Amino acid sequence: MKEIHTIAEMSLLRQQPSGSLGFVPTMGYLHEGHLSLVRKAKAENQAVAVSIFVNPTQFGRFLPAAEEIYPQGFNSWVKVEGVTERLEGASRPGHFQGVTTVVAKLFNIVRPDRAYFGQKDAQQAIVIKKMAADLNMSVEITVLPTVREPDGLAMSSRNSYLNAEERRSATVLFKALTVVRERYERGERNADLLRQEMISLIQGNPLARIDYVSIADRQTLEELSNIDRPALVSLAVRIGKTRLIDNILLG
Amino acid sequence: MKEIHTIAEMSLLRQQPSGSLGFVPTMGYLHEGHLSLVRKAKAENQAVAVSIFVNPTQFGRFLPAAEEIYPQGFNSWVKVEGVTERLEGASRPGHFQGVTTVVAKLFNIVRPDRAYFGQKDAQQAIVIKKMAADLNMSVEITVLPTVREPDGLAMSSRNSYLNAEERRSATVLFKALTVVRERYERGERNADLLRQEMISLIQGNPLARIDYVSIADRQTLEELSNIDRPALVSLAVRIGKTRLIDNILLG
Repeated sequence: MKEIHTIAEMSLLRQQPSGSLGFVPTMGYLHEGHLSLVRKAKAENQAVAVSIFVNPTQFGRFLPAAEEIYPQGFNSWVKVEGVTERLEGASRPGHFQGVTTVVAKLFNIVRPDRAYFGQKDAQQAIVIKKMAADLNMSVEITVLPTVREPDGLAMSSRNSYLNAEERRSATVLFKALTVVRERYERGERNADLLRQEMISLIQGNPLARIDYVSIADRQTLEELSNIDRPALVSLAVRIGKTRLIDNILLG
Repeated sequence: MKEIHTIAEMSLLRQQPSGSLGFVPTMGYLHEGHLSLVRKAKAENQAVAVSIFVNPTQFGRFLPAAEEIYPQGFNSWVKVEGVTERLEGASRPGHFQGVTTVVAKLFNIVRPDRAYFGQKDAQQAIVIKKMAADLNMSVEITVLPTVREPDGLAMSSRNSYLNAEERRSATVLFKALTVVRERYERGERNADLLRQEMISLIQGNPLARIDYVSIADRQTLEELSNIDRPALVSLAVRIGKTRLIDNILLG
């Protein structure tokens, strides 16, 4: 394993022929979810690159360590419109422009054949696929299932912020999604009713505060009244001060 | 010479090893200026690609022929901020976002080692260099001198719109730039005075209507009061209904 610290080193390395390259972009705090991406990348490619970069433009502030990625005077952006305006994009203005810009930069630096993302960040995966398709990026995007703790909580670096009581409450996200899945499998297609059930279930938990619950078209992320096509069921809930997200696919 | 009509054909061709590739993006109406770019690209690379695509997003409308480049639902953009807000960007809102998006797409499709642009579109060259640097695009941008008619008029597809009288008037752009160059070479550094001289000279021509005259920092395009650093002297002038641009570099 090589550790690479500069863009110049990476460019130099990519000038040598190396066969197909899989790429897993991360922001550190590696957990089992990231490792599942690395394993798949390793199985499908002759080499794997993992980046660790805490992207300041996703969080609305700049860190000094980011100077090589965002040198002084940096002023170019990649943005996806439409699908970025809903869900996470509505709650976190500018977030996805930060994501698409840094991912486009990393793709240009690393020049992977395939890149791997987790289903946990469902909207991010949709946005990156759209960016890659619209801008003719020659990289294949693979999205892998969310990895969960034994009680169903989706793996996330943010879980470490939860105290013991909050950690127990945090399972409410997956419980709400599971209720929707079970009701869907028994034939329920009324999205308004299912959203209301999620809301009631989560509101029954005193530590949980809903940011959004959504049952949406899986491509456009437009909210559905009836689940008559492939859907993304997603939610964002604050448990104490920690904002958690999760989702499942239906259909 | 191969003619390529689809993105798929181009991608396939680029999977074969071909040595270094030079790239000249054009919008058709090829003239001697474009040919100078092709010649340089040929001298510096083992192969040359020339694209001909009239980019609808630069002109605020979509043409049916553009469907492969902008399929239905297309919604991703590359933008450079700051330097795009001045000169051409101020006169033509959205223009540079159309330029940077299509050039980024063409770079991803063609994957050239080097790309060649004309100094005639000075701001475009600055914007594309900035985009390539900020977004870590692995392509070297070369800008070549403006090719001119014997009387100094910069080559442009738009020159064909001029009637005989307008064609004679059109030399006023290069005349104004030449006066500035001569005065600069004799030691004049007062940009306000030189801009005023350009304005007076052009206003003396009854068919000419000034859009802008500018003497600006060559990197940031901020207007200068004194020419105390490398400068871009540029102007946009309507001759009848035809909008022409031209520029020279000082220092």
